[in-house]
Amino acid sequence: MTLAPAHIEALIARAGAGGGTTDADTIAPHITEWRDKFMGATPLMLTPKDTESVAAILAYANEHTIRVVPQGGNTGLVGGGIPGLEGREEILLSLKKMDRILSVEPESYLLTAEAGATIASVQAAAAAKDRLFPLSLASEGSCTVGGTISTNAGGVHVIRYGTMRRLVAGVEAVLPAGTIIRDLDGLPKNNTGYDLKQLLIGAEGTLGIVTRATLRLAEPERVRHTLWLAVPSPAAALTALSTLKDVTGGRVSAAEIVSAAGLGLVLAHIPGARDPLSSPSPWYLLIEAATTGEDAALETAIMTWLEARMADGTVTDGTLAQSLTEREALWKLRESLSEAQKHEGASIKHDIAVPVTSVPAFLKDGTALIEARWPGARVIAFGHVGDGNIHFNVSVPKGGDGKVFLKEWEAMNAAVHDLVVSMGGSISAEHGIGTLKRGELGRLKPAAELEAMRAIKRALDPKGILNPGVLIPY
Amino acid sequence: MTLAPAHIEALIARAGAGGGTTDADTIAPHITEWRDKFMGATPLMLTPKDTESVAAILAYANEHTIRVVPQGGNTGLVGGGIPGLEGREEILLSLKKMDRILSVEPESYLLTAEAGATIASVQAAAAAKDRLFPLSLASEGSCTVGGTISTNAGGVHVIRYGTMRRLVAGVEAVLPAGTIIRDLDGLPKNNTGYDLKQLLIGAEGTLGIVTRATLRLAEPERVRHTLWLAVPSPAAALTALSTLKDVTGGRVSAAEIVSAAGLGLVLAHIPGARDPLSSPSPWYLLIEAATTGEDAALETAIMTWLEARMADGTVTDGTLAQSLTEREALWKLRESLSEAQKHEGASIKHDIAVPVTSVPAFLKDGTALIEARWPGARVIAFGHVGDGNIHFNVSVPKGGDGKVFLKEWEAMNAAVHDLVVSMGGSISAEHGIGTLKRGELGRLKPAAELEAMRAIKRALDPKGILNPGVLIPY
Repeated sequence: MTLAPAHIEALIARAGAGGGTTDADTIAPHITEWRDKFMGATPLMLTPKDTESVAAILAYANEHTIRVVPQGGNTGLVGGGIPGLEGREEILLSLKKMDRILSVEPESYLLTAEAGATIASVQAAAAAKDRLFPLSLASEGSCTVGGTISTNAGGVHVIRYGTMRRLVAGVEAVLPAGTIIRDLDGLPKNNTGYDLKQLLIGAEGTLGIVTRATLRLAEPERVRHTLWLAVPSPAAALTALSTLKDVTGGRVSAAEIVSAAGLGLVLAHIPGARDPLSSPSPWYLLIEAATTGEDAALETAIMTWLEARMADGTVTDGTLAQSLTEREALWKLRESLSEAQKHEGASIKHDIAVPVTSVPAFLKDGTALIEARWPGARVIAFGHVGDGNIHFNVSVPKGGDGKVFLKEWEAMNAAVHDLVVSMGGSISAEHGIGTLKRGELGRLKPAAELEAMRAIKRALDPKGILNPGVLIPY
Repeated sequence: MTLAPAHIEALIARAGAGGGTTDADTIAPHITEWRDKFMGATPLMLTPKDTESVAAILAYANEHTIRVVPQGGNTGLVGGGIPGLEGREEILLSLKKMDRILSVEPESYLLTAEAGATIASVQAAAAAKDRLFPLSLASEGSCTVGGTISTNAGGVHVIRYGTMRRLVAGVEAVLPAGTIIRDLDGLPKNNTGYDLKQLLIGAEGTLGIVTRATLRLAEPERVRHTLWLAVPSPAAALTALSTLKDVTGGRVSAAEIVSAAGLGLVLAHIPGARDPLSSPSPWYLLIEAATTGEDAALETAIMTWLEARMADGTVTDGTLAQSLTEREALWKLRESLSEAQKHEGASIKHDIAVPVTSVPAFLKDGTALIEARWPGARVIAFGHVGDGNIHFNVSVPKGGDGKVFLKEWEAMNAAVHDLVVSMGGSISAEHGIGTLKRGELGRLKPAAELEAMRAIKRALDPKGILNPGVLIPY
């Protein structure tokens, strides 16, 4: 990219005290995805320290039609926050120096933070005031408030607390022309025009740059009941979940499904992992109910429910964690799945969702589809069954060539996505579109919706300076 | 309005089997607000029976630049669904014939209905499958799915279940040019571009016409613990609420504040109403915790909490409803407030919200403001204290002339709204903007947000045919 030195100088000046750099070594970690799947390029990284500097940068960039990619923790998986992909000419605007927690109000269950604050720091600040920030995902130590808002992040607690969208009570953001909109009061009820924050949530930085947010907190989960259950089928897992939700009065906070093949990989490759049950099952359900304090009635209700489910065959075996150590061991089985799968060689991944009641049909048809067209390929499916969000990963056939297998990525994605769309599902449940799935979105999203998206983009970013390569199909 | 007979004929033909009418008597109830505050006019009311007919109507209207006002149950309070206000030339599109419940899925906690279905019918269909549709508001017998989506309705259960926005899992809608967008699968996780339904929610029919929706259901509230508490101040009410939320693990589903003056009016004017407590208090809190089944631990926790709050002075007296009859009597005290206030003559109303922690300051400053500038005027404040949403109503001075008093409507609104905005609050917590508050929104909303709203409106409705007089300041 041939960005004139005068522009570089002007932009760094507008970045204020936080400054910016053209130093390739400093920039390097910000233009490479952590798995090395996306390798970008940029002549300039800006690291402003306040909202006014972000506004000054965008005003200048918009005036001179300089394209800007905003970045949070750089933990994304779809090439949504890396400049210079596909040969695009873009500068990088990192929010990493805007990482302060600005306030925590336990009485109103609200927290306000800058966009670059990590989710882990938000969780910690809430916990220090005896409140829960319920978003929880693998990258929480690095991913940021702004990034999780811009991708509407999900994770394991969506079933009870919703995605990031439900947790955002207000945002401050800079629009492409450099104007600031600010609504950080966290009003639960406010009907005074189009809810602009809703448009920014999940927009992947294409309509504005989130600079601050007010987030909703929940009551702390002081007591958790965690069960590892053997279930005969995904349909049984859904029945188990829906009946437990009822019995606990909506206090189920996680429900993760794991196949026998998935557990097998974890037991084979993860040191210290052991099967919590004595006999094998085709499917397992890790399910957790939580509440704010000692509640003997809840535990009794769960045990009564478990007896009834074992009597009617919904559950065939199970164990309830008796200590924090036991709970962590159960969760580790689920959380080690991606890691365990790496030991089996190359894999092709799908972050999809189908309507919750269609999960059993999807697993059956999806597996049949893969096995018919890619003989020997091994489906490892697991994930957030209560959200219909399955991580449908496919490992290379045993002894097969990983590089050859990975050439099937696009064909396999397309085949799985066609099935997902035919079931009313989503080709991106929680990772977003980014650069990776832009083409697939163009292929599969109805024309009326694509046209509405493009019209909104043109309306708010007429010069197309904000993250122009992501989300919206060309 | 001089709508050419050829247009009338063409539009009625496009309305399909549901048809339309130019008969003034049939149209009359649809162009008058139930309090007679808004009186509209229109030459044509269309009553399509399906989405395709709505699409055909809008395609024709857009082509010929005929302005259309969509209407649900006509229960709005701000002139948002009545055609022909302020001399505008508009036809009426009523969704009343599209009132079917299409499906209820208890296992996935979802229900799909047409836009004209009433909220009461949705509640009943959910209850028949042992699920709860938690939106609850005074007009629920008449207000509709489409209307409550377009106004992002609130009500008494927002504190636990959120406003309509959180309850909408998907919509089908017709955009101004007559194209249909459809997303009724209710996926909890779906990140594939701008979430267009979020833009339609609360848009008051200015960006599209919602024709169907998939709504989220909750576990039923089979057991409710309802308390009427005497509290020394609004601040004490907030402390009571936040500690009870913690103790019950988020199971508080309503928290309504009532002043001594408000209770006094109810006792004076509502037959059968009686004070549940033996001695007076400046403020009262009606608070309810609910769960799905018998839960002795919850009741014990509530009683332990009540003892602690009485010991520390947060609560000075209280009663727990011991039967459904007692519960209904407590709720009637709250629900009769508007009715009771009518007996005191004219009143000027404000549907405002402030940050939850600012409720005490707002009540103090707001009351002082009224009493200083309008001597003798009587503030009757009540409402959803946990949302910061106070119905701040002001009655004519005792013995004063109602007509003279009502001339103060705009001046008093402006004064109260200035205070609200200075505290970071909202001039429309749950009723919306409509025609009534369009001017106030223009006066008080920041220019950058107004400009973004106008840009979005132009992008999706370039000819301005959909509900052109509401929401967006000219």
